[in-house]
Amino acid sequence: MAKKPKKPQRPKAILPRGFNDSFGEDVLARQRMLARIAEVYHLYGFDPLETPAIETVEALGKFLPDVDRPMGGVFGFQDDDEAWIALRYDMTAPLARVAAQYKQDLPSPYRRYAMGPVWRNEKPGPGRFRQFWQCDADTVGTSTVAADAEICAMLADALQAAGIARDEFSVRINNRKVLNGILEQTGLLQPGGDDDTGLENRRGITLRAIDKLDRLGESGVRLLLGEGRKDESGDFTKGANLSDEQADIIMGFVSAERADGAATCARLRELVGTSEQGQEGVDELETIAEILESQGYYAPLAKIDPSIVRGLDYYTGPVYEAELTFEIIDEKGEKRQFGSVAGGGRYDDLVGRFTGQRTPGTGVSIGVDRLLAALAARNDAEEERAQGPVVILAAERDQMADYQLLCAELRNAGIRAEVYMGGGTNMGKQLKYADKRAAPVAVIIGSEERERGVVQIKDLVLGARLASEIESNEEWKAQPAQREVARGDALATIREILAP
Amino acid sequence: MAKKPKKPQRPKAILPRGFNDSFGEDVLARQRMLARIAEVYHLYGFDPLETPAIETVEALGKFLPDVDRPMGGVFGFQDDDEAWIALRYDMTAPLARVAAQYKQDLPSPYRRYAMGPVWRNEKPGPGRFRQFWQCDADTVGTSTVAADAEICAMLADALQAAGIARDEFSVRINNRKVLNGILEQTGLLQPGGDDDTGLENRRGITLRAIDKLDRLGESGVRLLLGEGRKDESGDFTKGANLSDEQADIIMGFVSAERADGAATCARLRELVGTSEQGQEGVDELETIAEILESQGYYAPLAKIDPSIVRGLDYYTGPVYEAELTFEIIDEKGEKRQFGSVAGGGRYDDLVGRFTGQRTPGTGVSIGVDRLLAALAARNDAEEERAQGPVVILAAERDQMADYQLLCAELRNAGIRAEVYMGGGTNMGKQLKYADKRAAPVAVIIGSEERERGVVQIKDLVLGARLASEIESNEEWKAQPAQREVARGDALATIREILAP
Repeated sequence: MAKKPKKPQRPKAILPRGFNDSFGEDVLARQRMLARIAEVYHLYGFDPLETPAIETVEALGKFLPDVDRPMGGVFGFQDDDEAWIALRYDMTAPLARVAAQYKQDLPSPYRRYAMGPVWRNEKPGPGRFRQFWQCDADTVGTSTVAADAEICAMLADALQAAGIARDEFSVRINNRKVLNGILEQTGLLQPGGDDDTGLENRRGITLRAIDKLDRLGESGVRLLLGEGRKDESGDFTKGANLSDEQADIIMGFVSAERADGAATCARLRELVGTSEQGQEGVDELETIAEILESQGYYAPLAKIDPSIVRGLDYYTGPVYEAELTFEIIDEKGEKRQFGSVAGGGRYDDLVGRFTGQRTPGTGVSIGVDRLLAALAARNDAEEERAQGPVVILAAERDQMADYQLLCAELRNAGIRAEVYMGGGTNMGKQLKYADKRAAPVAVIIGSEERERGVVQIKDLVLGARLASEIESNEEWKAQPAQREVARGDALATIREILAP
Repeated sequence: MAKKPKKPQRPKAILPRGFNDSFGEDVLARQRMLARIAEVYHLYGFDPLETPAIETVEALGKFLPDVDRPMGGVFGFQDDDEAWIALRYDMTAPLARVAAQYKQDLPSPYRRYAMGPVWRNEKPGPGRFRQFWQCDADTVGTSTVAADAEICAMLADALQAAGIARDEFSVRINNRKVLNGILEQTGLLQPGGDDDTGLENRRGITLRAIDKLDRLGESGVRLLLGEGRKDESGDFTKGANLSDEQADIIMGFVSAERADGAATCARLRELVGTSEQGQEGVDELETIAEILESQGYYAPLAKIDPSIVRGLDYYTGPVYEAELTFEIIDEKGEKRQFGSVAGGGRYDDLVGRFTGQRTPGTGVSIGVDRLLAALAARNDAEEERAQGPVVILAAERDQMADYQLLCAELRNAGIRAEVYMGGGTNMGKQLKYADKRAAPVAVIIGSEERERGVVQIKDLVLGARLASEIESNEEWKAQPAQREVARGDALATIREILAP
């Protein structure tokens, strides 16, 4: 006989860092939210698309800002044929691949929505997971800014469908062309573009600095536009080395918001001066504001906000972001606005990467998990509490077939129900289980009940309420939360208890 | 100025081998099917669980039959901290991890369902993808076979909810303990178990041979039980090297099915002889059949079938499989039964891997993509055809805001609608787009209509029908598929056209 192999060490029952599990009501809450957002997207004429989690690294491209890490922030691995493949980090890269691959067959413009998890191989932190859900909608194959305006209107509708009130968020819109116009004014960008990598770096630092206005305030951004900034932990972030004059132009731009869209656009028009690109960007913003206002999306529901830049390099025109404006208590116990839950913009070169032909697109991504967290933090996560099943206790182990029969009767009537499947016949343990399941009703058929053709029906919701009100033992015994009824009346009685 | 960098080669717009995209109605069909199955699981008292796509390799364990490949059939990669992590290949391994990790907080038994994609790093083939959807339900923490019977009943209900008629499938049930009893009879297994790796290998070959009965027939299985079998491509599969007498016992077992559950169990009882494990297995099958029959799940809806073994090593008791019995035309143009779409069984050691404590479980996995393929192959994929949106043509580029206004009016009335967002004002091109979108209605507001305060409404469904019926040009012009109505009547007219 072979030697007994050494007992292997037991594996740890844990997840890799930065991943989490969702249970019961949390799963259902996300499903409901996705369904409601999808309904809005569908109403707007967008069609669903589902691409696989894995793409070729080549098709995904390197568009994440996380440039310092080995795979640039993605989970990648080598396929059998040596080709590198990776988990998608967003829904836009796969869309661009699809738009190129099925160009001949898809309607143009192609309007699609997509919902699913994406993966980022980043350092996890509090509330920052390496897998999270996105819910995107994009229009590919059109350059009209009417498409951008439509996405902004749809985003506002989708957030309301997801449970955010009209006065609790703001869709903020800017335009990269205006930003480029400003950069031209500072001399950081040559009209018509340039390939100076030194300037490109300084432009990148400038954009990222503006993007941090919410968090760092004007003074922090000023430091980043200048020599750099040391944060609380002592880490130093290199600055863009702008002159005071250049920084003034940028800061003037960032604070260019005026009372309404027209006034903001007028101010921006001054700031971009003679920059052609800048003027074009302001024109576009005006058109977007006009379309949105004609449909009733006024500020602050939708508004032009020059401080919005969006982190991604690939945007070429309008960019937009939805911010929740209600206050929550953060991890440090401080009141703050919840912040961004969705964002997007126009990208004119993503599909062209594959085809060589310019195929402009625009679209939005809603961070569903962040939105769920916001609703939870607002502390009124929907009251559609999942109700547990009716639990039929297993008083006699050899009567399981009979319990299942009653259970089937309940289920056929549309009542969620189950027979206790654990071991033993200890009623206390089984009632505890029913409690843990949030069961509204427990059914007991012991040998005595079986012989007399009756069942005991416990109203656990009423029982819990009475238990907290009744003090004497006498009263407890007289409590009406348990009834004995004929077996044939069990369904009707339970239905009556469950009726709202 | 920096030198212009060399133009990079364009990436290919393709997916890695073995992955696919789903569009529009296909995505919706899967969502509907998942929702209907989830409804059944929910009614039975199961709660949703969503685990991330990625687990530690340690937690996943090596339970795939594909033992010859580098990562054993999984997509694995090394995390930053050098730990190996991988995409889940099923839903059972993550469940076992969850059941161990949250042991203290979860109700016991823990009844959960899970739906999502899983990944197999296998050689793709026709209809065989490396990412596919599963929809599982399991009861963990109970050893009663009533739980197995319940899963089988629920599986039958779920398949019907998914659109398979009661007489189109069969849930076939067997028991690994009976199988072990038979193996004891052949001398391939010592009563009480053994650690002889030579015997273990031969047992493995024997199980896999039985599993192939559907495909290879009795003679093919005989070869695999003996010296081995050369397939059509010339590949040789090593056999279990059983004697004729041993093979006779196995083949007798495989064909032990009789007219009803009781008769089959009686036959199995003879075959397992004095094997304790075998007798216990037959007892369990009898109880399962009794519970199922008491609820109206008779053969062939649910039946004991000794030829079911299930490929996975970890099953320890009842195993079950749902097979579609209707015929389809396969890739080779031949009629055949569609085959298995779901399977599962009892695994008593998966949670114990982590905790060291025995925590038995049982559950089923429905292969949703296979089920969808079956419905499509039966050629009556649900007639809930997705309807395209109403398309408002963009006749004048500077009237986009006005078109959007009408569009918003339709959407507010719950009508799926969009404005054409492509370039240009060519009406023919725009009508072609509407056609490609399966739009039921197109709306035209040209400058003339705008001035007169009217809109043209084209009923594209009626139009298509008329076009195929009408021959003369005269009739074509007189056709009623296009109506001019006052702008204020547009919504009412479109509603009337869309009314079923």
